[in-house]
Formats: sequence, structure tokens, C-alpha cells
Amino acid sequence: MGPGRSAGYTLETHPSAYRHWRLAIEPPLATLTLAVDEESPVVPGYKLKLNSYDLGVDIELADAVMRLRFEHPEVRAVILTGGLDRVFCAGANIHMLATSAHAFKVNFCKYTNETRLAIEDACAHSGQHYIAACNGTTAGGGYELALACEEIYLVDDGNSAVSLPEVPLLGVLPGTGGLTRVIDKRKVRRDLADVFATLAEGVKGKRAVEWRLVDGLFPKSRFQEAVRERALALAAQETRPKGPGIVIEPLDPEVSPDAVLYRHVSLRLNRGERTAELTIDATTDYAPLRAFRELDDALLRLRLNYDEIGLVILKTRGDLETVRRGDTELSQRADWLSNETLLLMARTLRRLDLTARSLFAVVDEGSCFAGSLLEIALAADRIYMLRDSAGAVRMATSPLNSGLLPMTHGLTRLETRFMADPAHAVEIAAAAEPFDTDAAEKAGLVTAAVDEIDWEDELRVAIEERASLSPDALTGMEANLRFAGAENADSKIFGRLSAWQNWIFSRPNATGERGALTLYGKPERPQFNWRRT
Amino acid sequence: MGPGRSAGYTLETHPSAYRHWRLAIEPPLATLTLAVDEESPVVPGYKLKLNSYDLGVDIELADAVMRLRFEHPEVRAVILTGGLDRVFCAGANIHMLATSAHAFKVNFCKYTNETRLAIEDACAHSGQHYIAACNGTTAGGGYELALACEEIYLVDDGNSAVSLPEVPLLGVLPGTGGLTRVIDKRKVRRDLADVFATLAEGVKGKRAVEWRLVDGLFPKSRFQEAVRERALALAAQETRPKGPGIVIEPLDPEVSPDAVLYRHVSLRLNRGERTAELTIDATTDYAPLRAFRELDDALLRLRLNYDEIGLVILKTRGDLETVRRGDTELSQRADWLSNETLLLMARTLRRLDLTARSLFAVVDEGSCFAGSLLEIALAADRIYMLRDSAGAVRMATSPLNSGLLPMTHGLTRLETRFMADPAHAVEIAAAAEPFDTDAAEKAGLVTAAVDEIDWEDELRVAIEERASLSPDALTGMEANLRFAGAENADSKIFGRLSAWQNWIFSRPNATGERGALTLYGKPERPQFNWRRT
Repeated sequence: MGPGRSAGYTLETHPSAYRHWRLAIEPPLATLTLAVDEESPVVPGYKLKLNSYDLGVDIELADAVMRLRFEHPEVRAVILTGGLDRVFCAGANIHMLATSAHAFKVNFCKYTNETRLAIEDACAHSGQHYIAACNGTTAGGGYELALACEEIYLVDDGNSAVSLPEVPLLGVLPGTGGLTRVIDKRKVRRDLADVFATLAEGVKGKRAVEWRLVDGLFPKSRFQEAVRERALALAAQETRPKGPGIVIEPLDPEVSPDAVLYRHVSLRLNRGERTAELTIDATTDYAPLRAFRELDDALLRLRLNYDEIGLVILKTRGDLETVRRGDTELSQRADWLSNETLLLMARTLRRLDLTARSLFAVVDEGSCFAGSLLEIALAADRIYMLRDSAGAVRMATSPLNSGLLPMTHGLTRLETRFMADPAHAVEIAAAAEPFDTDAAEKAGLVTAAVDEIDWEDELRVAIEERASLSPDALTGMEANLRFAGAENADSKIFGRLSAWQNWIFSRPNATGERGALTLYGKPERPQFNWRRT
Repeated sequence: MGPGRSAGYTLETHPSAYRHWRLAIEPPLATLTLAVDEESPVVPGYKLKLNSYDLGVDIELADAVMRLRFEHPEVRAVILTGGLDRVFCAGANIHMLATSAHAFKVNFCKYTNETRLAIEDACAHSGQHYIAACNGTTAGGGYELALACEEIYLVDDGNSAVSLPEVPLLGVLPGTGGLTRVIDKRKVRRDLADVFATLAEGVKGKRAVEWRLVDGLFPKSRFQEAVRERALALAAQETRPKGPGIVIEPLDPEVSPDAVLYRHVSLRLNRGERTAELTIDATTDYAPLRAFRELDDALLRLRLNYDEIGLVILKTRGDLETVRRGDTELSQRADWLSNETLLLMARTLRRLDLTARSLFAVVDEGSCFAGSLLEIALAADRIYMLRDSAGAVRMATSPLNSGLLPMTHGLTRLETRFMADPAHAVEIAAAAEPFDTDAAEKAGLVTAAVDEIDWEDELRVAIEERASLSPDALTGMEANLRFAGAENADSKIFGRLSAWQNWIFSRPNATGERGALTLYGKPERPQFNWRRT
């Protein structure tokens, strides 16, 4: 039983429980030091040598990045560095990757990608600037982690290099955005990027600066001090008042074989049908931050622990006006916490867009697809809405549908939906009145408006049909249809880059018996089928 | 021996030799009628039933689209229609796909994609407007062919539908841009696109119009006449003077086991090393149109016939100033033929960008990387330039480096290369003087400038190293590093869509013993591994 076959990953953690990262707060700075405990892999079976990471290490990093925003808003710059001798980070653990199931590899890469994007989101929108202090070997996913930071500094010790050795050593791609960030974020010349990505030993010293791979070099003797000075300079640029921080409470869901139950969110599995029902309940003491944290956690559990579930039915409960009022208040971004809450909601919704399961939203009696919760329906592949005789089933927009919760490629979900008529997207987002089923259908907000008498049958058939289709074809189809419009660097990571990586992971040249990933660290040389596609 | 294992495909054809298409010229209209001869597959082993296509059918289409531009510039609108009873086109032949090697499937899809883009290029830039006259079943690749046209009309006979049945019937994606064109070109609402792409029987009649899948319906009784009227209206919009046409001469290369030799272009294989040398010789009677047609043909032969070749060394021979003068004249687009020549050169260079082989340009004595030929070097993954003591080795730009030969994603190769400094890209493109090796190195035009004494060794080592790497990892790496910058719909087809399709093609759920593609048409139902990634 390799990783990815564990009974269930838990995504929540706390700095007091970290095994691999040390978080030190010294406002306006914080330092995140990676000192991986090689004896604590997330599942047994491999050692985390040389500051290499697995899902457990990245769960701690994601937790720290999130807590810094909410619990330590007074922090303006974060130094990411290595705590072992002469190594910053050696990237994802190869033995973990080589022994993992394909679905786990893909979801592991997706999660680490999302964590890197969360770091970039903090730099861009939270006034927390990340600096990579590469105090030693910075290889593969280690360099990709550095690439997610705003600035990268490398120790000039005549030895330490940055590298992406995946292609020459493992026969796979750097899977965490490396190729895209090298050319699109750091704007490294494409031919130099080509040399760099095929050079197992990487690039060090002045050449690393000349090629734009790092922002600067400091000698070992004053490395920490110089990075600290740079971090203080970045921190000094941030003058928005922030704080005091809040405490991020544990979610502690109640987990049973067929359900994960949170305060506002419930995930109920129907394993026989390969479906699940994911409900956001805004009826009692609705707190958007808590609800979206729960939704985020539920999505990750779904991806990592329940990979046989192919279709998720999205539901909501609550009062439209209550949610709209809360949204309107948030949209004013009167304080730092509103801003952070919106950013977390936006990240969670992007996680939903990028979840490789079919998503059907069901709008029925008592549902509450308003504003921020309407985005959940708009993220779905289809929206089914009950046409009730009373006209009580309704959806509504709020100020949050106009741009504060963008998709990965930068458009709103309404803009993406109404590509053919941008003015219509604007009009719908600004609608003052809720939409009953007829109005929603006319506005193009629903895939099917269904009369009460047909409701159960039509839903049942749609669900059964969807659950019968090839899971691979659906993954590819949904990855394409969800993202109408031009792509940016972020969306290229999940579109172009990850799709190629998935392909390579599934090929014998990487994961076959004689593949490069399988044989890494063994005396045998890989054997390739040389046919180029 | 299935298709894709043939000893060698020939890409050239002529209307007099067509087996599957009929081309009728009636200025300002032309009609291209698909009446596939089911007994004439490109390699033996399957029947081309129901107007389904294989590579041979698409080679004829590509030839017709090219000849219409050059030989029949007086044609302003082209009607694409079906010549069999009640069928427009049923798409790519499934048995051909199911029995093909992976590399062939991928290259077949790439070629058909490029043909569809050539149709769109003719609509946008050559004043030849394509209309799809869907006079019957329009399924899968048949609908994708229609999607490449500017307008789509469907017969309203109560029966004929447009459909993309790949996901529900075959467990693969529509592989020829269908999903991207549905949402990005026709701007179909994403949830309707989702329903459409999972509905094996497709959509017909008014619903097809309402969903934006087709532009209009005409009853069977006046279908031809109505389409013809619409084509004449489109043709009437084109008033630029054009013609008379020229004759497209056969290329007839001399083919031996280790070489394909044309007038200006030579492709020499070094099978033991898994490398090839592709040289464009502009020394004698250089004719750019002929030379780029030869280059195009050589690239296609390389892709389809020599898939064990992993690295192509790109060379040129000739006089810089001669090529620059020719480029300057072409750049003025004084007549329709200059315009068409430029468009063909641009398409050929895009074919080079999209060729999944490592590309090294070698700039040595006698080389001629100037202007349009410099683009060949800029398309390469690396550029090696000899530093000769005489300073005779030089490169040069021309007016064609400033935007007339764009990449698939819309940027020039200089813009893509110098993402970090757009002003530098403009400056280099406008440089009046050639660059000797030192100047080229300083300008960032070369990956490595190498002294004479090291030249042979350094090239040999670089070539050997490249040829030793995983061919899959290189394909993925190059597909990512070549396209810095934002993506548009065209580039999404080759990036996001094709990458996902490649992944699905290589998965057991499609091509395994019990996969959906393998079992299509057989009584057994496919068996899926339900784990979603």
C-alpha cells in the first residue's frame, strides 16, 4: 500500500503540530523554515531525505500561509528558507511519487500548485511579501517553491545551485508550475530555460542572476542578514493598517464512512452510485469565512480520500437576503479581515473550478444560491432548477458576482458563462431582484428548469447517465469546457502544463517497469520507447 | 500492422487524384463535396464508412484548401458539404483510431487541427469564406470540421443533428478542437456545451440554433439554394482584386532510406543517433513559396514517417542580403500572391513550432538565418552559433520579423523570446545591420556562441545529451517552453485540449483491452477504472 491508498488524509493542522516547518513571527517579518523530519512521511513507506516534501509537508505549508494572513496580519514579509545544512529544498520526494497511484500523483501536484498560487495571492493581494532565501541546494519542487515567491536570493557559496532536474533525471516535468513560471513569471529566455531544464546540476552564481533564475546572490557570511534587510525593505512598502489577527478555529468535522459533517457544510457519499452531495447550509449563524473554510476542506477530502466519486451534487440551504446582505458588507472591504475573507472565498471557488469531478448544482426548495453561493452553482457543469408552483425557488446575485471572486484565468464566472454577450453578464450581476425559475431560465442561469412532476426522474436520469461515462473523458472535457476565454500564466499551469504532466505520468517511459521515475535511485538505466509523438 | 506503421505517407496530392473530395469551381464560389470512398483507406485494414475520414481524406482537404488560395484566388466563398445520402461527415474513422499507435493518433489529430486552422486562416486573411452546409448527420470530427468554417447551416429534416459523441460513445475527447471552438469561437454557454458533448445523439433543429451550435436551418427542399445564396452574400463582401491564380507545381522530392531531398530543402536522417538535419538552401534561384512548401512537406514526413527521430538540426545556406531583399518585397504585400505567400510561410513556421521534436538551430559558415529564415532559428529550442575568426558568420532580421509571421498564440517569435524586455524585441526586429556572433550573443539571439576550436565537440555533446533524454518529457517540456505569454483559442487547442486528449488516449479506460475506444462497435461494454483524477 503506497501513498494515495491511505484510508483518509486530514488536511487540518496547526503550528503546534508541525513536524516539518518552523514558523517564527517577528513583526513585520515572519520566517518559515523547512526542516523536514525524514522519519515522518504522511504515510509509511519512504524517508523524506534532503528536505524533500510529500503531501504532509505541503499541508503544513498551506496552513502556515493561511494562518499568516488571518492570525498575523501585522506580518508584511515572509522569509522562506531551509533549516537543514546546505539545502533549501530538494523538491517532491521521488520514492513517494514513484510508488503513488496516478490519481494521487495528479491530486498531489494540484494541491501543491494551489498552495504556490496561495503564496502569490498573498503577495499580490494581502500585503504579505514572500522571499525565498535559498541557503543551499534548491532543486526541482524546491526551486518551484522559490518561484512562487516574489523574490529569490541564492547563497553564493560556489556550490549551491537552483535546478529543475526532472526531465534529465526522472523523465517527467517539473509538476508544480516550474516551466510556466520560468518563462511567464520570471520571463527567462526560452532557450536558456530549455538549457536550464535539461541540466541536472542546475545553474549557480552569476549565471543564475544573468539568466533571471534568481534575483540576487549573497555570500554565506551575510546571507541571513542581507535577506532580512531585503525583507524589511519589502515590508516597509506596506502601509495599509491591518490587525489585530483573529484565531483560526479548528473545523473538526465529524467523519463517518459515508459522510463528513461540518457546521455549515456537509459532504454525504453515495458510494454505490459514485456520487456525493455537498451542501452549504446558511440557515443558522451563517459565517462565510467558516463556511468557505469548510467547503475548502471538504473539496480536498473529496479529491484525496474519495476518488471513486465521479459526480458531486451541489446544494445550498438558507435565506437569499441574509447571504446578499453579508456579501454586500464584505464587498465594501471596509477592513483587512473582509479583504482576507473574500480572498479565501475566491481561492476556495477556484479550487472548486479545478476539482476533477462532475459538478451538478441543484436549485430546489429552501436553496440559497445567492451571490457568493451563486458562484458555487456557476462553477458547476450544469445547473438544475425546480419550477415549483409557488414560485418560491429563486436565485440571486450580489455585489460579489462582479469581479471579487475571479476564476483562475481572471474572468468572472458570469463573464465566462456569457462569453457571447458580455453586456448580459454585467446586467445579470447587477440585478436587484432575485430570479424565480422562469426568470432564471430566461436569463440563461440554468441548464434545465424542471417541473415538479418531472423533477425526481429527470435528476435521477441525469445523474445516472453522468456517472456511467468514462471518468477520464469527463476529466478532460470538464477541464476544457470550464475555462472559456483567454488563458493567463496561472491557468496555463492547470491547463497546458498539468495536462502534459498527467500524460507523461501515465506513460511507460516514466512509470513503466523500466521507466525513469520507477528506476530513479536504482542501478539500472531507464529504457525508453524512442517514438516521439 | 495498423495505420501509423506504414513505411511512409506521402502528403502531396492533386484534385485529379482525389478519391474522397470533389472540388468544383464556379467563381466567386467553390464547392468542396465530401464523398468518401470507403474502400480507399490510406493504409489497409478498415473501411471508411459513413463519410468518416482518415489521414488520406484530410490530406486531400488540406491540398484543396491550399490550392483554392493559390490556384483559384477568384473564389471568395467555399461551400463544404457532404456528397453521400443524408450524411455530412461522421468524423474520424474509429477503427482507424482504435488500431493506430499512440504517436500516430497524436500526429493525425495535430495534422487535422492544422488543416482546420488553415481554413480559419483563409476566412480571416485570404478573403475566402468557408460555409459548412451540413446536409445530414454531422458527428464528431464532422461537426469539428463544420466548426472550422465561418458559418454553419444545418438541414431541417427532423432528423439531421450536429453532435460530439466522443465522450459518451468512445471515452475520448473530440480531438480536433471541438470543445475549444464550441465555447471560445461559437461562445456556446458552458453548461449547454456540457450537455451537448455528453449527448450521443446530438442536437438538431431550433435547439441547435438557440444553443449557437449552428447559424441557421434550411428545409431540405431549398437547402442547397439557401446555402448558395448565403455564400454569394459572403463572397460579395470581398472586393479586393485578386488573381489570376498560379499553378502549384508538384514537389516530388527524391526519397531514399536516409534522406528526402527537395529543390531548396533537404532532410537527412541519422537514424543511429535518432537525429536529422533539415537544411534550407537559398543559394540558387531561391523561391520562398517553393522553399516553405518544401519545408512544410518535410516537417509532415518527419512527424508521420520518422517518429524515432528525436532531434532535428536546423541549418540554412545562402546570402543574407538576398533573403532580406526578398522579405522586404514580400512585406509590402503589393499583390494577393505576396499576401498568400506570407500566410503560407507563417503557417509553415507554426507547424515547426508545433512539431514535437527537439529543434537545435546551427548557425555556421555559409548559413543564412535572415528574416523569414531567422524565424526558423527563433522557432528552435536552442541556437548554436559559430564564432569564426573572420567574423563572416552572421544573422540578420528583416521586416518579416515584426509581426507578419506570428506564432499560434499571436505573438512574434522575438516577442516570445524577449518577454522580459518588449522594447528589445522591437529594436532587434528593426536592426538595419546583420549581427556577427559577438553582436548576436550580446543581443540575446543565441543560446551559445562557440569558438571554432570547441565547435564540433560542443555540438556533438549537446546533440548526444539531448538524444538521450526521455522523449515524452521532452515533448511536454518543449510544448510548455515554446509558448511564453498568454494563450488564445488557437493555442488552447494545442495546449490545453490536445494535451488532455493525449493523456486520455494513453489511458486504459480508452485504449486498454476493455477500453471504450477499443471496444467501440463490439458487443461488450467497456469496463472503466472509476478513480477520478
